[in-house]
Amino acid sequence: MSTFNVELKRVVDDSYQIETGYELTETLVDDLRSGLVGKIKKFAIITDSIVEKLYATAIYERILEAGFKADLFVFPAGEKSKVRKTKEEIEDAMLEKDYRRDCCIIAVGGGVVTDLAGFIAGTFARGVPFINYATTLLAAADASVGGKTAVDTPRATNLIGLFNQPKKVYIDIATWRTLPKNQLSSGLAETIKHACMADSEFFEYLEEHMEDIMNLDKDALDHISNKNCEIKYKVVMKDEKESGLREILNLGHTVGRAIETTSDYKLLHGEAVSIGLVAETILSRKLGYMDDNQVMRVRELLKKAKLPVSIPEYIDKEVLLNKLYTDKKVRDGKLRFVVQYGLGSMVEFDKNNFGIEVSKEDAYEIIKDL
Amino acid sequence: MSTFNVELKRVVDDSYQIETGYELTETLVDDLRSGLVGKIKKFAIITDSIVEKLYATAIYERILEAGFKADLFVFPAGEKSKVRKTKEEIEDAMLEKDYRRDCCIIAVGGGVVTDLAGFIAGTFARGVPFINYATTLLAAADASVGGKTAVDTPRATNLIGLFNQPKKVYIDIATWRTLPKNQLSSGLAETIKHACMADSEFFEYLEEHMEDIMNLDKDALDHISNKNCEIKYKVVMKDEKESGLREILNLGHTVGRAIETTSDYKLLHGEAVSIGLVAETILSRKLGYMDDNQVMRVRELLKKAKLPVSIPEYIDKEVLLNKLYTDKKVRDGKLRFVVQYGLGSMVEFDKNNFGIEVSKEDAYEIIKDL
Repeated sequence: MSTFNVELKRVVDDSYQIETGYELTETLVDDLRSGLVGKIKKFAIITDSIVEKLYATAIYERILEAGFKADLFVFPAGEKSKVRKTKEEIEDAMLEKDYRRDCCIIAVGGGVVTDLAGFIAGTFARGVPFINYATTLLAAADASVGGKTAVDTPRATNLIGLFNQPKKVYIDIATWRTLPKNQLSSGLAETIKHACMADSEFFEYLEEHMEDIMNLDKDALDHISNKNCEIKYKVVMKDEKESGLREILNLGHTVGRAIETTSDYKLLHGEAVSIGLVAETILSRKLGYMDDNQVMRVRELLKKAKLPVSIPEYIDKEVLLNKLYTDKKVRDGKLRFVVQYGLGSMVEFDKNNFGIEVSKEDAYEIIKDL
Repeated sequence: MSTFNVELKRVVDDSYQIETGYELTETLVDDLRSGLVGKIKKFAIITDSIVEKLYATAIYERILEAGFKADLFVFPAGEKSKVRKTKEEIEDAMLEKDYRRDCCIIAVGGGVVTDLAGFIAGTFARGVPFINYATTLLAAADASVGGKTAVDTPRATNLIGLFNQPKKVYIDIATWRTLPKNQLSSGLAETIKHACMADSEFFEYLEEHMEDIMNLDKDALDHISNKNCEIKYKVVMKDEKESGLREILNLGHTVGRAIETTSDYKLLHGEAVSIGLVAETILSRKLGYMDDNQVMRVRELLKKAKLPVSIPEYIDKEVLLNKLYTDKKVRDGKLRFVVQYGLGSMVEFDKNNFGIEVSKEDAYEIIKDL
């Protein structure tokens, strides 16, 4: 009998920069040239079938032109592609084209692309660097900070994946012009979530400027892009590995994710989160943390952003209720929700007892009226 | 245009303990009770169809008896199971049985089990803790230190995976008694590699005690188990993420892995590595780093351990040569080998220029005579 201690304590630096602006391809190429990812000269550009035509091909050609090696790996657009099969197909295609560990992945697209490409980067040759070039508001709001990458499985959303930080994130606001209106709204759901969760002033800003935002006013877009980063960053900084505090980012997501899956992805992620936010304001009011007026303001703001605030008729509420129990947040079979406190802050909880435990009856009651 | 800096510098402690002994199930249960993995009470025991009957079922029952929740997840024994499909099936089975992030994976088995289970743990719910209960010499020699986890793909061995450190490793020497002789030999290939690479005294010990080892003499097994940990640990400590120095652990593996795949896994990992070690001693002699006598001693030691020292006839050497070029170590399309210097040390190389570049002609010449 003998024991042996493997000491693996060390300092890890996963810091990175988020750059927001208009048309950032040249900035990206300049960064690659000045060694953003060291000496790497080979880039796997991962994108979806929509973004391919809009932006990724141009970026790919520019990178080739700059003297690097590059290939485009394209998968069909949509949340349904965020599965292990797509990951496998892209890995095989990369291996086929002789990609090994001396490469870098560039994700060009929205949240599905950045989630999937970040996950691929995390396990390709046991980890290669990756860069996010975000082309949607949702990716800017949600996927650019936090390092969460994942795929969906038949039984659960985002349950297979890892924490993986990009080398840099580019938020190209110019690309939002080509976003379908419902995609813009979907991104705004995460933006509104951030305001509800952490910033009452920003909430008021959104109430006042929602029309400007929907009209793609430059100043308004700049402002929300920065605010999204800032708010999410503050939370992630304190809790990179989601041990407790970071749970607050799941505001609206417990119900939202279940709705998204139950709708069979007919609802976009942000649309489902919007309904989830309404559900959690109802719970918050029930518990005495919000008043009727505050609940109403959240609902009105979501409506201004052209987001749904009630469960579509085609969703079976019994199925939805059961789906809730497959959430990552379920511990010991108990459902927990994080809820907001008024507008711009969260009900506090400690690390070991995050969120508020909700009985199946209470959950059903909230869902039933939604 | 604005930039935002995400600061993610922090101290990470992945330290863990390796415990070597005879019949360690009680030790494991005691450790789980005293909080080795915190408050976790739910254990997914991953094993293969051979180890299931020999050891895993007994461990599973003991863990249940101790008042924990547990399930056995069994896949067909053999290297061919170390693929993404098996990973997916186990993930789905775990989700089906309501495993979420509040669980711990216990790998019970050899290198295939620990590689696969460690990879599953790394991406399940974005990472759950795992424990290795190693039941083969190969797992003790190779998989217990280093944190490398991976699966094979049709085009390459170990190319999809991640670095993931276990919470503890148990090396149960009692289990080696049931090891088929060729599996014991396979493990000895890695042991001999460690001696060649870093410890001339240990090399001499092996020359003197190979018979004792093959007869499972307790003292000899204890000694090699400790030496394996010690040597590998020294290397891994200096270079956890394989940025350079750790490459020396690939002694014999560049050719070995290619032989293993080309044999369609008819050769065990260690058997293929044995032939790879011979190949790299030939290269070393050619370059003037070893003399004829040293090359002969390595070959004789491998033979004493009942390991093959030449390429089986059924392997097409042209196919093998091409296979070499799919290795993770290929950079810019150039083949690189790490080679030993005499007995017990390595030819030094710097971080940016690891290994020795070998032309296709030279590689073929070495393979042709093997």
